[in-house]
Amino acid sequence: MTARQMKLGAFLWATGHHIAAWRHPKAHVTAGIDIDHYIQLARTAEAAKFDMVFCEDAAGLREANVGIASQTSRSIGFEPISLLSALAVQTSRIGLVSTASTSYNEPYGLARTFLSLDQLSGGRAGWNLVTSASPIEAANFGSTGLKPHADRYERAREFAEVVAGLWRGKLDAASGHDGQSFSVRDPLDLPRSPQGAPVMVQAGASDVGRALAARTADVVFTAAQTFEEAKAFYDDLKGRMAAYGREPDDIKIMPGVAPVVAETEAEAREKYEELQELIPDDVGVALLSSYLSISDLWRHPIDGPLPELPESEGMKSRQALVIEQSRRDNLSIRQLARHFAGARGHWRIVGTASQIADELQARFEGGAADGFNVMPSYFPGELDAFATLVVPELQRRGLFRKEYGGRTLRDHLGLKRPV
Amino acid sequence: MTARQMKLGAFLWATGHHIAAWRHPKAHVTAGIDIDHYIQLARTAEAAKFDMVFCEDAAGLREANVGIASQTSRSIGFEPISLLSALAVQTSRIGLVSTASTSYNEPYGLARTFLSLDQLSGGRAGWNLVTSASPIEAANFGSTGLKPHADRYERAREFAEVVAGLWRGKLDAASGHDGQSFSVRDPLDLPRSPQGAPVMVQAGASDVGRALAARTADVVFTAAQTFEEAKAFYDDLKGRMAAYGREPDDIKIMPGVAPVVAETEAEAREKYEELQELIPDDVGVALLSSYLSISDLWRHPIDGPLPELPESEGMKSRQALVIEQSRRDNLSIRQLARHFAGARGHWRIVGTASQIADELQARFEGGAADGFNVMPSYFPGELDAFATLVVPELQRRGLFRKEYGGRTLRDHLGLKRPV
Repeated sequence: MTARQMKLGAFLWATGHHIAAWRHPKAHVTAGIDIDHYIQLARTAEAAKFDMVFCEDAAGLREANVGIASQTSRSIGFEPISLLSALAVQTSRIGLVSTASTSYNEPYGLARTFLSLDQLSGGRAGWNLVTSASPIEAANFGSTGLKPHADRYERAREFAEVVAGLWRGKLDAASGHDGQSFSVRDPLDLPRSPQGAPVMVQAGASDVGRALAARTADVVFTAAQTFEEAKAFYDDLKGRMAAYGREPDDIKIMPGVAPVVAETEAEAREKYEELQELIPDDVGVALLSSYLSISDLWRHPIDGPLPELPESEGMKSRQALVIEQSRRDNLSIRQLARHFAGARGHWRIVGTASQIADELQARFEGGAADGFNVMPSYFPGELDAFATLVVPELQRRGLFRKEYGGRTLRDHLGLKRPV
Repeated sequence: MTARQMKLGAFLWATGHHIAAWRHPKAHVTAGIDIDHYIQLARTAEAAKFDMVFCEDAAGLREANVGIASQTSRSIGFEPISLLSALAVQTSRIGLVSTASTSYNEPYGLARTFLSLDQLSGGRAGWNLVTSASPIEAANFGSTGLKPHADRYERAREFAEVVAGLWRGKLDAASGHDGQSFSVRDPLDLPRSPQGAPVMVQAGASDVGRALAARTADVVFTAAQTFEEAKAFYDDLKGRMAAYGREPDDIKIMPGVAPVVAETEAEAREKYEELQELIPDDVGVALLSSYLSISDLWRHPIDGPLPELPESEGMKSRQALVIEQSRRDNLSIRQLARHFAGARGHWRIVGTASQIADELQARFEGGAADGFNVMPSYFPGELDAFATLVVPELQRRGLFRKEYGGRTLRDHLGLKRPV
């Protein structure tokens, strides 16, 4: 098969991506610390020929208010390197991608850990670089506040350069690395990766985030609600590649998608509404607050509009997305909270397999995506539904593989092997 | 069975503990990055009812001279958290203990990773605290030299306190930790361990190292060549416990032992000599140099005595051990190098299962050990030999379990569950 193929990630997240998933009657509430649950999800995704499973990470609570945190679907869960290492020996083909922070790690240790995961999985590891925009996390690592956005990205740029050098065996006793934030002398005590180097994933969407991605990333995970947003991001990022001596196809852009699929559209809508109704207002507002990096949103009338917001040092791109949506659709805080809480700011599609495949195909063929990071509402039910309903439909359309063609994550993604 | 039982660890180390193991005709040279090899070792140890597998760690080459490093049995290998997480889902009972440094990690991240391993293994994880005495490692983390011994231990003391607090759920939003080296605000995003808290292992043998162990450790891994050394260490450490409000039995002392076992003593001696003859002089001298924390040992005549040595900031206890042995047995540099290279400074016993069991029993019953960390010369052969020859002999004598009595590492070790 020579036609361009869609890339698919299965974004694993404890009980599920829907913030109220834990209240769903079919929810597995302690999924976050159930290794058998994760093994089942990884095997489902592998049987459906997904390119990879994907894990987020933050070394701290996901929400400052412990009362709120305990009411979300990801209040507890495994640290992802230990989780993916366990999954590595319970699967054989699927890629294993974990998030890790450039702000609270050192490049030598991180490069070594991911290369170790890569070696023990036979070349299936990927690292999703984040600079960590959460002040909650900062407070667990001796910081009194979040470092400015630009400083975090400057550290991340050097961090990524050191890691890439270590993975490519370009650092040795003669050269080493002696830079602004880091100095590293040795090569790693591991041989080169079976895939040349682990895959580098990024998710920053600000200008400096895009520049870093165009310079170093193999995959970009992004959030886009509309086709136009997705297309604009895609064109912008692909257009930046030449400046770094890279081809547009050297980077795969995979927006998040939160599908709710059923045999009929009515059933799908019903499933979705059932979940939405489970969102407590205070939880929705708290999540919206964290996207906006403000703490006093609850002081504003919940049925009124979003107030004017100060510039923040958090996730600039996520903040812009929320503000734009609020203005476009003239939504109240409650409506906006519920909208974003459901899909955590990602693109939501509710419908039959055919309707969902239509939407994915339109963005894929319309030049707005190379694939998608799939964010099921709750596990395992909604991953199973995507695997058994949507994947076969994509395969019938010739948009997605029926068998793995290679053994490594780079093979699956169609990425060049670094020399 | 109510008699006191010996504790046994299987110290995993790539090709084997003997420095020339990689040159042995039965060696598996790329064992360090062969996950199936490690799975086999862990299952062998579990079938023999070992308390735990144990991994060392250093984020860097184990030897400054790359030419020498490439001639040792542990020049490459997995990072241990990823390794043990993979082993967790391929075993069901055996403990999983990894070394990690207090100098190049942060307590929140380390506590979280080990608790995650603990959760995914059902309460079988342990952390071996080291302060990292290698200047090679320091150079990979932005340091121009090793920090003084006392400073490393002061950081380690606070580090261990924060980790223990996080594991025991004693840190919360109200209290947090705000100390000299670290400030941490949140509790961990994981529930309490199935064993109350992961097991804390230590290996420092200096005065400040012993004080830290008496204060916080559950298990101490140590190196002692003679019964008298082992007994003196044992009595000293057990005697320190009361000062911290702890019982002597709250800490298990497990010296390393490097056995070479065969059906007859002559065969065992032959096996041992075959390995010793494979040690190149330059490698032996290099290893001895690292134990002594000096770089110019090779300038001294190899058949002459050890020169007078300056005080070092490295592993003080290991250095003292080498110097003492050199004086006691009046050994030349070559003899000393070969002696230490073979067992890496640990206690070597060569003989039949019965002879080895006699020696272990004498130290165990003589109040010099609660058990042993077994360091096979090469894998899998010498672990298999210990499991099939020595373990049954210990079981016959009523010194070692025939079945696991519990499910967690604390159960195996007979340690109290922290409240």
